Amino acid sequence: MRILYHLPLSPQCRLVRLALSEKRLPCELMIERVWDKREEFIELNPSGEVPVLVEENGLAVPGARVICEYLDEAYPDTPLLGKTLAERVEIRRLVDWFETLFASGVTRNLLGEKVDKRLFGLGHPDGNALRAGYANMRFHLDYIGWLAESRSWLGGSSISLADFAAASHLSALDFIGDINWNKAPSAKDWYARVKSRPSFRGLLTDKVSGITPPAHYANLDF
Amino acid sequence: MRILYHLPLSPQCRLVRLALSEKRLPCELMIERVWDKREEFIELNPSGEVPVLVEENGLAVPGARVICEYLDEAYPDTPLLGKTLAERVEIRRLVDWFETLFASGVTRNLLGEKVDKRLFGLGHPDGNALRAGYANMRFHLDYIGWLAESRSWLGGSSISLADFAAASHLSALDFIGDINWNKAPSAKDWYARVKSRPSFRGLLTDKVSGITPPAHYANLDF
Repeated sequence: MRILYHLPLSPQCRLVRLALSEKRLPCELMIERVWDKREEFIELNPSGEVPVLVEENGLAVPGARVICEYLDEAYPDTPLLGKTLAERVEIRRLVDWFETLFASGVTRNLLGEKVDKRLFGLGHPDGNALRAGYANMRFHLDYIGWLAESRSWLGGSSISLADFAAASHLSALDFIGDINWNKAPSAKDWYARVKSRPSFRGLLTDKVSGITPPAHYANLDF
Repeated sequence: MRILYHLPLSPQCRLVRLALSEKRLPCELMIERVWDKREEFIELNPSGEVPVLVEENGLAVPGARVICEYLDEAYPDTPLLGKTLAERVEIRRLVDWFETLFASGVTRNLLGEKVDKRLFGLGHPDGNALRAGYANMRFHLDYIGWLAESRSWLGGSSISLADFAAASHLSALDFIGDINWNKAPSAKDWYARVKSRPSFRGLLTDKVSGITPPAHYANLDF
């Protein structure tokens, strides 16, 4: 059986879970406590980070974007990166946007300060980081809302990895109750559409010790 | 004519210049002073960052990795991402390694502190960042040396985007005289092989106002 080494609240792991599920590729989820720096895991991925996908033939594929590119090449049914060159540029641009700008400006400042710091024993959240994270989030929710109003889905006319990259970050932040959806109606409408996909079900039933998600987290009609 | 908006010392721009040159795709280089936040440029790339490639048909392709994936799809002669699925995983893993771990641990701490801070008017280099950058560089040069001893090229048996991603960061750091090659003989031998490619010539003749590269920078037998 295919194995995904992951952490439940990692947006990068969530992105891969969504991609696997959209492509109907069954997979066993194994939680990897990366802070333990397990030797066998470092051999699979020298960077020591999740996600890492291990195929039945033994091929280890590390890193969310590397895995998603691999999945679209190895299992081209249900393409997630678009068809034409221009579509693929726009979808990859947005994946890059969420994996760099959103990740460093929002996710690291909120999830990183509130959850990762505790897991890695690095102390309490920094107030300046939290304030910056919330301010940056408003900008990004506006951008998502604007894209969702201009197109059927974030990356174009079909749902794509752009939507799943955005939704994986937002779903992890929603789990810790950090999103004020009422202030971002267009982004909320788009997120409700992504959240109602069957591929999302696994994320909505995640349990994380010590954190209780808000009531609306798993509610499709939030 | 194809246009690349770039900055000479940006490793990401250097990576794209190498990829274009390896594929023999002519291109006009336009320096973009991103700190001016020029409106027409933000329209090409909402993140406001270089590199951005604009094709003759008007297609704007922003971001080094997005551009390189695009180039390998649009111009598949001289493939830079490998052939088999396993090769492509390993090459993309290493590109990701240099674009995230090396970029944040080394390039940002050295080039970011010494050059970018000055360009953006953000003050003097931080001593702790410089020390961390040099320490991280030693680890990465060892890893590059180990890869270069185990394989013909960093990503496998052929030269690939993995080599160019590593070399683009190292060439920018070499320009500001920040690499002690004598302490990393295997990495140095590999870099001498990459540096002697015709595609590298453009980088070696770069001029940057206010910075004079060390004598060995453009020397193929350094």
